Amino acid sequence: MARIITISREFGSGGRELGKRLSDILNYDYYDKEIIPEIAKKHQLDEEYVEKTLDNQIWKTIPLTYGRTLSVSYYINPVQTNLLVEEREILEKIAKSDRNCIIVGRNADVLLKDYNPFKIFVCADMDSKINRCLKRQNETEVKTIKAIENEIKSIDKARSKSREMFSDNKWGDKKDYNLIVNTTGWDLKELSVSLANVINTWFESKNVN
Amino acid sequence: MARIITISREFGSGGRELGKRLSDILNYDYYDKEIIPEIAKKHQLDEEYVEKTLDNQIWKTIPLTYGRTLSVSYYINPVQTNLLVEEREILEKIAKSDRNCIIVGRNADVLLKDYNPFKIFVCADMDSKINRCLKRQNETEVKTIKAIENEIKSIDKARSKSREMFSDNKWGDKKDYNLIVNTTGWDLKELSVSLANVINTWFESKNVN
Repeated sequence: MARIITISREFGSGGRELGKRLSDILNYDYYDKEIIPEIAKKHQLDEEYVEKTLDNQIWKTIPLTYGRTLSVSYYINPVQTNLLVEEREILEKIAKSDRNCIIVGRNADVLLKDYNPFKIFVCADMDSKINRCLKRQNETEVKTIKAIENEIKSIDKARSKSREMFSDNKWGDKKDYNLIVNTTGWDLKELSVSLANVINTWFESKNVN
Repeated sequence: MARIITISREFGSGGRELGKRLSDILNYDYYDKEIIPEIAKKHQLDEEYVEKTLDNQIWKTIPLTYGRTLSVSYYINPVQTNLLVEEREILEKIAKSDRNCIIVGRNADVLLKDYNPFKIFVCADMDSKINRCLKRQNETEVKTIKAIENEIKSIDKARSKSREMFSDNKWGDKKDYNLIVNTTGWDLKELSVSLANVINTWFESKNVN
C-alpha cells in the first residue's frame, strides 16, 4: 500500500507550501487543485466553478423541519452531488495507484481514512496568517488587513462546514489528526525537513513502503 | 537563555514518558513531580497533599455573585495560594537557571510564557489511553476499564479547570501550542527521536543555545 499524507489547513497557515515542500523532500506526488481540471473537463464545467463548489464556498444552508424539530441542513444540488462523487472517485483512484502522495485539503483525511493516511492539520495565529496573505497579494489586488482577516475567517468557516458533511467530528479537532502543527514562528523550509523525518519514522514503523 | 520545552498532556497519553525520553535524548533537565518535595518541605506539608493540591484534584468551585451576574469561580484557600506562588517561583528559578529543561504539566507553558518555551500538547484516543493505564497497573490495584475511563476524564477535567485560572484559552487549544502530538499508534521511543529533531531545528532557528 502507498504512503498517503493528508494535510488539512487553516487559510493562510502555509499548509499548501508545507505540503509542496514535503512532496519535494519525500518525492511524493502532490495533489491539491491538481484534480480540478480533470473533474471540470469530464462534466464540461468551468474550472473556477468546480473549484469553488468543491471548496465549499457556495454551499447554501437552509432550515429544515423534521417533525417538530427545526434543523439546519445543507442544500446540495445535483451538479454539486456529481462533483463530490467525482472528487471522491478521483481521490480513491489516487490512493489505489500505489504511488506515495500528499493531498492538501479536499477532506481527504476523512474520505481516504480506510487507506490509513498520516493526517496533519496546519494552523497558525491570526497575525501570521494575515502576514502570509499580505505577502501573496499582487499589485492589482490590495485588500485591507480587516478584509483579509474576514476572508480567512470566511474560508475557514466554509472548510469547517464542508467537513461536517463527512464527519461527526469537528474540523481541526486534535483527536482526528496524527499531528497538529502551528507554523507561527517557523521557517517552512526547515519545518518541512524535520517533519519529513517524523513522517518517515511513522511509515517505517507501520511497514508501509 | 536556556531552551525550555513544556509538555501538557492528557492523562494516559504517554506525555510523561515522552518528556522523559526527550530529556534523555537531548540531555535536558527533567521536571514533573520533581518539584513537589521542595515545596512540601518548605511548607511542612505532606508531599501527597501538595501534589494533589497543585495537580488541581482538590479545587472546589463555588457559585459567586458579582452584582446581578451569577458566575462560577474558584475557591482557593490560603494554603493553596501559597503553594501556587511557591510553584511559580520554583518554575521561574528553573527557567532562569540557564540549563535546558523539559517541564511536564504544572501549567508551565502559561507560567513561563515570557521565556518562550517550545510548547507541546500530547493527546491520544481513549482506547490507547485506557491501554496505557492498564499496563501501568500493579497487581494489588485492579480497576475496571470503565473506572479507568472515568479516572482519565476526571483528571483531564481537573487539568483543564486548573488552566482556566491562568489563561483565557482552553486547555489543549491548538493555537496555544507549537505542536500537538497524537501518540495513538506511535512507538514512543521512535516518536521521541524524531521529535527531538524538530525541537532542535526550532531552537537553532531562534538562536537559543
